[in-house]
Amino acid sequence: VNVITSSRNPTLLAVRKLGRAPARAGQRRFLLEGAQGIRAALDASAPVATLLATPAAAARHRRLLDDAGAAGAEVLLVAERVLHGLAQTVTPQGLVAVVPSVVRGLDALPAAPRLVAVLTEVRDPGNAGTVLRAADAFGADAVATTAGSVDPESPKAVRASAGSLFHLAVLAGVAWPDLAGALAGRGVALVGADPHARDSVDAAPLEGPTAVVLGNEAHGLGADVRRDLDHLVRLPTRGRAESLNLAAAAAVLLWEAARRQRVAVPLRGEAVVG
Amino acid sequence: VNVITSSRNPTLLAVRKLGRAPARAGQRRFLLEGAQGIRAALDASAPVATLLATPAAAARHRRLLDDAGAAGAEVLLVAERVLHGLAQTVTPQGLVAVVPSVVRGLDALPAAPRLVAVLTEVRDPGNAGTVLRAADAFGADAVATTAGSVDPESPKAVRASAGSLFHLAVLAGVAWPDLAGALAGRGVALVGADPHARDSVDAAPLEGPTAVVLGNEAHGLGADVRRDLDHLVRLPTRGRAESLNLAAAAAVLLWEAARRQRVAVPLRGEAVVG
Repeated sequence: VNVITSSRNPTLLAVRKLGRAPARAGQRRFLLEGAQGIRAALDASAPVATLLATPAAAARHRRLLDDAGAAGAEVLLVAERVLHGLAQTVTPQGLVAVVPSVVRGLDALPAAPRLVAVLTEVRDPGNAGTVLRAADAFGADAVATTAGSVDPESPKAVRASAGSLFHLAVLAGVAWPDLAGALAGRGVALVGADPHARDSVDAAPLEGPTAVVLGNEAHGLGADVRRDLDHLVRLPTRGRAESLNLAAAAAVLLWEAARRQRVAVPLRGEAVVG
Repeated sequence: VNVITSSRNPTLLAVRKLGRAPARAGQRRFLLEGAQGIRAALDASAPVATLLATPAAAARHRRLLDDAGAAGAEVLLVAERVLHGLAQTVTPQGLVAVVPSVVRGLDALPAAPRLVAVLTEVRDPGNAGTVLRAADAFGADAVATTAGSVDPESPKAVRASAGSLFHLAVLAGVAWPDLAGALAGRGVALVGADPHARDSVDAAPLEGPTAVVLGNEAHGLGADVRRDLDHLVRLPTRGRAESLNLAAAAAVLLWEAARRQRVAVPLRGEAVVG
């Protein structure tokens, strides 16, 4: 078996470019690092175009490589120093996959969503990935980022999402007015998060179909977004923390909506207690 | 006013060492970067030993420098390239303070805590700081890290805590058996988080005094910790996410405990709705 030892290899040159947003948009592909994310892609029957592995990682993850090959991926061995130069993470696991983009436009919004997370002007890729992971955990039907938000397929977002990118509908770069209209048309209440809101989330009706709408890390929700919201809520806090970290606030709001919906309509035989 | 332009300045050499844990332990001081954190320290009447500012930051934050000086801090102007070499953050704001350590030992545990967050073997400083911030927001009385966990005064943890370090009792490096004994002696239920637990958090009694106990990012709670827990709970998830990010799970558990305690005993006239 040949091992690629040159960082000038044409395949690797194309792959390296995927660290940047314009190349991702142009190639309609993104990078997926580590065994957990690649396994999530295979489990979700997402196509994997290319799987690059160091010889050591190939030996450790024989089954993953076999499964990727069986699913149609081109599997290539790459020398460790070359792959590490390519990987975006600080501690790469010796596995990098090239995967066709999974984000979609507004047409991918489910017909009757119960729970949606919306990121408007969110800039930190780690926050975007963490919200995606929480949305997946709490059973959201979709996550949508509006134009101006970070790319959910950027390497840091992909890593933080820990495979959740493959588990639910992810809409990216959607225009807010179109998204707001589509959600309203489906009977989904638009609930914005703002630490200075008058109303506590305790008083907000989250039992029905709900979209949790989050704004920029520094500036919060824009005026254009606020105008279209059905409710603006804060998490009642007792401490002196100025506000929660965006991803933590999103996780709590998604949890709270899912919890109330679970109480209203038990799912999968989950025990229901107050 | 003199501006320090040499990175060999003795004060700066001592400050630079505070990026590392042994120097923090030896000097019993830590670094606090940015206006928000420094303001939180001053507002909490925490002593600030030294405040380093670039000339540009000093002009922007005149009031902060005056307040720090009035509170007894030595205020020094430092050339921008020198201060940026010192700062740990990617986008320093031109403000770095040296602050006496605020973490304490087991004797700082409040007499009758209602809500405590415990980090055992948590390694990521960003996670530790984010949990601190959420604990503060949701009115926890204390955060404790056990021996083997990350230092809550490491630069990344301090930055993620966004000033919350000054808002509640922070115990660091405590031996787990001692902490568990002290909490149990105060009537605090020890509730550990584990995505594979049999019991859902819905069924756990969080209405009374509660300590939310979190384990290592990769390996979860250790056997020694599990042995002493009163309850082991998971967050009921509907999606396929393997588990939530540690900080997100901690935020939700702290929220859930605070919510139930709020329903049981309304605080500060907060509106109470289911």
